[in-house]
Amino acid sequence: MSYRYLCLLAAGLLSTTMASAQTSAPPSATSSPIAFAIHGGAGTILKSRMTPEGEAHIRAGLTEALTTGYAILQRGGSAVDAVEAAIRVLEDSPYFNAGKGAVATSAGTFELDAAIMDGSTLQAGSVAGLKHIKNPISLAKLVMQHSPHVMMIGDGAEVFAMSQGIDTVPNSYFRTETRWHQYEHMRDSVAGTLPKSSYNDPAIEKKYGTVGAVALDREGHLAAGTSTGGTAFKRWGRVGDSPIIGAGTYASNASGCAVSATGTGEYFIRNVVAADICKRVEYLHESIDSAATYVVMRKLVAQHGDGGVIAMDSRGHVVQPFNTEGMYRGYIDANGKPVAELYK
Amino acid sequence: MSYRYLCLLAAGLLSTTMASAQTSAPPSATSSPIAFAIHGGAGTILKSRMTPEGEAHIRAGLTEALTTGYAILQRGGSAVDAVEAAIRVLEDSPYFNAGKGAVATSAGTFELDAAIMDGSTLQAGSVAGLKHIKNPISLAKLVMQHSPHVMMIGDGAEVFAMSQGIDTVPNSYFRTETRWHQYEHMRDSVAGTLPKSSYNDPAIEKKYGTVGAVALDREGHLAAGTSTGGTAFKRWGRVGDSPIIGAGTYASNASGCAVSATGTGEYFIRNVVAADICKRVEYLHESIDSAATYVVMRKLVAQHGDGGVIAMDSRGHVVQPFNTEGMYRGYIDANGKPVAELYK
Repeated sequence: MSYRYLCLLAAGLLSTTMASAQTSAPPSATSSPIAFAIHGGAGTILKSRMTPEGEAHIRAGLTEALTTGYAILQRGGSAVDAVEAAIRVLEDSPYFNAGKGAVATSAGTFELDAAIMDGSTLQAGSVAGLKHIKNPISLAKLVMQHSPHVMMIGDGAEVFAMSQGIDTVPNSYFRTETRWHQYEHMRDSVAGTLPKSSYNDPAIEKKYGTVGAVALDREGHLAAGTSTGGTAFKRWGRVGDSPIIGAGTYASNASGCAVSATGTGEYFIRNVVAADICKRVEYLHESIDSAATYVVMRKLVAQHGDGGVIAMDSRGHVVQPFNTEGMYRGYIDANGKPVAELYK
Repeated sequence: MSYRYLCLLAAGLLSTTMASAQTSAPPSATSSPIAFAIHGGAGTILKSRMTPEGEAHIRAGLTEALTTGYAILQRGGSAVDAVEAAIRVLEDSPYFNAGKGAVATSAGTFELDAAIMDGSTLQAGSVAGLKHIKNPISLAKLVMQHSPHVMMIGDGAEVFAMSQGIDTVPNSYFRTETRWHQYEHMRDSVAGTLPKSSYNDPAIEKKYGTVGAVALDREGHLAAGTSTGGTAFKRWGRVGDSPIIGAGTYASNASGCAVSATGTGEYFIRNVVAADICKRVEYLHESIDSAATYVVMRKLVAQHGDGGVIAMDSRGHVVQPFNTEGMYRGYIDANGKPVAELYK
């Protein structure tokens, strides 16, 4: 057990009233509530480092994704469709590390991963190592619905994509000036040409820019989805937790739980974070607050695993704990209004 | 809940005394028992369809893998090293669907996946979509021990492999005459050129030929590993449960549980089978027998998810339930002797 873990225990930081574990009431008082929540990545997100313009872009992206997904639920659409639609908005925005605006690998290329899961059937679709798919979350959904498989990777996944008529783009489509500046900084710093102080450049701050969504539809079905460009300067071929069913993404009506994660993916894989939260709810009868908070703030913190999750239970209760400086996140409140947050 | 699930419940088929859930006592009565078990795939494995020569090859391979892994544990080696060594034996044998002897994809190529996990640290390594790595399990171990990542796929994983000096081979190395005959049959039957009766050819029987191992070493550490050529005629780029930490492979000293799975990978991913068994042991305080048997014989059967697992607890108790006609499997008995089984 690490010193940091003991300190957290001693400081009593782990109550469910913690600032970082924001919750929302179910958005409807009917017998079939709908609920929707998203995240846009966790990491060193500090107000002092954010420009008003940058913050406005992030808030606008989160708000558009929330309203897009929620509108689908309001008109009786499925949780799966709401999750996909919201994540497409975040993939298309250059301000989030998924789809356009993804971070580059150490080789200067872009490799994207995504997963989606339908809690009502346990069906899931997952894709990794994509280079030419504009919206990876939609390919994940096609794998789930139109193939006998759960996970497809690399060129094989892209060949399947062609057979489905999905939008393809050149790899350079994903490149944005801000991310490329970040890549060049990292490349040069690895090559030893940059002074150490350059590490403080906000453009190369440590941020795990995955995006994700969880939803509860009028049928009472839960769904979860996640999409990412991975970690900045990751080694070519590395896959994080986002497309791993059970690690970065999980949804199960039977468990009464849906989770999408963001953070240092390796820790989320080793701890099977999304499934662990759902199993705590199902087997230990913990509330979604307690389960998600325990895994993120105790288990992961004890291992120095940075990140956060959004989690929802079968009543539409949302919790969004994170152990980093900030996490882009949002939910629809009890009045149907989108609420977007960035900091602690 | 499906009709079949209800019937199974009613029929009381799920007691832990079932024939397919064989167990072994811990192999040592000391305070630090060591234990070792393996599998070589589950599926339509019937004595009536097996030639004496084929059965002898399978038994010889299982026995060699068991004695190789167990010898490492006996001389104080780690559970991780024992798992790797045994799986290398099965990968090198042409009679198992991993490494040499792997089944072909629908494109006539060979794509291999593997994973290994150290229960003492929760460190894990996973590789998928390999085409030129002679022993995928050893690359998974290198990813675990010599990279910051857990999972690496495709060409990127192979570039990392080169940097580690691991043995590489041409893709054709994995091809064997028996598997190629099977591939040609499947290709021709898809093309409609074969009569339906040809489906009964033993060479194209339905078998999920993953291999795997679980171990407990003198330090009390658990480990698990799995390696596969995937399902026969799988679509190019498809990844099953074997390399998915939590689905086909999981080990955790904290849970007191190590699991390696074989079967229709998609069901094992959706149900996070290996992690679910470990969470049932940890959270519900079920025995390893009860947990593994429940997941394989109830959850998976209810969903028509074919396959089996080998699972071990922190005392070295082994259980090997499967819901198929047979499963190649083995363990070291209380006297240190290898026991290999093929059928129900």
